[in-house]
Amino acid sequence: MHLANRVLKGDLQAAARLITLVENESPESIEEMSIIYPHTGRAYIIGITGPPGAGKSSLTDALIKFFRDQKKTVGVVAVDPSSAFTGGAILGDRIRMQRHCIDPDVFIRSLATRGWIGGLAKTTVGAVHIMDAMGKDVIIIETVGSGQIEIDISRAADTTLLVLTPGSGDEIQMMKAGILEAADVFAVNKSDQPGAETIKNGLELMLGLRPHCATDFMPRVISTTAIQDLGVNDLAEEIMRHHEHLVTTGLLQNRQRARAKFELLETLQGFLTNFMQRIDEGDYLDKLVDNLLKGKTNPYTATMDIATRFAGDLDNMKSKGNQK
Amino acid sequence: MHLANRVLKGDLQAAARLITLVENESPESIEEMSIIYPHTGRAYIIGITGPPGAGKSSLTDALIKFFRDQKKTVGVVAVDPSSAFTGGAILGDRIRMQRHCIDPDVFIRSLATRGWIGGLAKTTVGAVHIMDAMGKDVIIIETVGSGQIEIDISRAADTTLLVLTPGSGDEIQMMKAGILEAADVFAVNKSDQPGAETIKNGLELMLGLRPHCATDFMPRVISTTAIQDLGVNDLAEEIMRHHEHLVTTGLLQNRQRARAKFELLETLQGFLTNFMQRIDEGDYLDKLVDNLLKGKTNPYTATMDIATRFAGDLDNMKSKGNQK
Repeated sequence: MHLANRVLKGDLQAAARLITLVENESPESIEEMSIIYPHTGRAYIIGITGPPGAGKSSLTDALIKFFRDQKKTVGVVAVDPSSAFTGGAILGDRIRMQRHCIDPDVFIRSLATRGWIGGLAKTTVGAVHIMDAMGKDVIIIETVGSGQIEIDISRAADTTLLVLTPGSGDEIQMMKAGILEAADVFAVNKSDQPGAETIKNGLELMLGLRPHCATDFMPRVISTTAIQDLGVNDLAEEIMRHHEHLVTTGLLQNRQRARAKFELLETLQGFLTNFMQRIDEGDYLDKLVDNLLKGKTNPYTATMDIATRFAGDLDNMKSKGNQK
Repeated sequence: MHLANRVLKGDLQAAARLITLVENESPESIEEMSIIYPHTGRAYIIGITGPPGAGKSSLTDALIKFFRDQKKTVGVVAVDPSSAFTGGAILGDRIRMQRHCIDPDVFIRSLATRGWIGGLAKTTVGAVHIMDAMGKDVIIIETVGSGQIEIDISRAADTTLLVLTPGSGDEIQMMKAGILEAADVFAVNKSDQPGAETIKNGLELMLGLRPHCATDFMPRVISTTAIQDLGVNDLAEEIMRHHEHLVTTGLLQNRQRARAKFELLETLQGFLTNFMQRIDEGDYLDKLVDNLLKGKTNPYTATMDIATRFAGDLDNMKSKGNQK
């Protein structure tokens, strides 16, 4: 039986193995994910991001507890853009999250990866799809963010939560990087520390300056102290308020649609990039360039030649698929 | 008869019209350029770039005279990245160049364009091919440069000349942007003005810091005053010295090869981008996304669907080509 079918039947080990296949970009993962895909689109996806040390894992842990109290099943994809970079601190937080490990309705998976761009996005989306198909009601993607990552995570999530802490002083940088626009819900964690009010006021000021019209979601900045479970209910309610807003305005469908299209175009782009790499590895491209230099062909005819080869490749892949 | 065949017979009007076809990305230009292409690869291509007001057109004018005295035929592609931006100054310089207009062995063409990136590169390369096929011995590409443009022009030329002037004070910026690495020959024009020695010394210092090995071309900084024809012979000799270096080291062939490959990949990329735009215009892509959202397909199968359509498109184009 396909791993994917075992995942659909609730086999946790099969789910873990399938995520590993996706992570390793194993060729079988394509067929497996084709079985998974029709069972996706039901989970509510929350992205949690912010600078290192902001307490994202502690907040994730507290949110898991909140959703479990509501009898919702939860999946967590915890992404380490670079294990070397973030070091042991994250490991400690992840260990804290493990208290949910004995709960069969919480499925946590860490993805260690060299960077978000490219490979990771695909792996993260794959892991989310698998947890979605497993029937998880809520899926949390948690990652250390800086710049592009927040914008990417906001593409993958329905609601994006940005976590800041007093003294991080990154507000202006984030404003510049367009991160505030990418996030929907804002938490100032470690709000018992000095400077918490300053960052909260600063954020509120900047959010007030966001261009908006009457139907826009007006975010509130929530103060939390995750390790003491303070403000977590307010934060969860703010997340639910954003979810409600997405549903009533029809924006949820728009986001899901944009996400599906984005994933399709990314898959197509990956397919083409892969093809281009393959033709550049052998001597095929070299010979075409030789013929160009000898005046035996021209860039237009040579492009047709490449495209024809691409079509041939495709027939090949399809007939292989049919043999299975 | 095809325009291209008339170009090959030396028809100047046909050449001007064909460049316009390429500039307008007219569909016929593909077939016409297929006829041109086998007759290219013989001209020596010089790129001239530098900040606005550096005297690039005056230097081009002086170099035309130098090559004509050597009985070489010359083509000039003068690129205005933005007419609005550079304004009348360039127009004055271009008028100066017009003294060669009565010389049938000098072919000058201005390309007005909104920017180098994308369209312009293709148009410029097309115009160079046409002049090359016309039998021009030397082709000069002249453009106002800032940042990326120099690097692009150095891909299109055999020898790239960077023109600076006293007081431009852009040395450090250019160092950062990798422009010094992209250029082969360096002129300090308007060298009769104060500060000329300072910029010359600064350039020499920076060029001395370039990583190099024994076989590398060691550039000299040439002082010129183009409008008085001072230093132009030295500059032309430096250009020829670089050309000689490319020939004896075999680097000329490498550059030509890299250029042909780059043009091929650019053509392929253009072809794919065009296809993607077309499928995004109709409702084809929308319907695929609908099916994704309904779980009727998945990103992998949908990608195959798109690729199959691409192959069909291709067959269509080829059968149209055969009907001609």
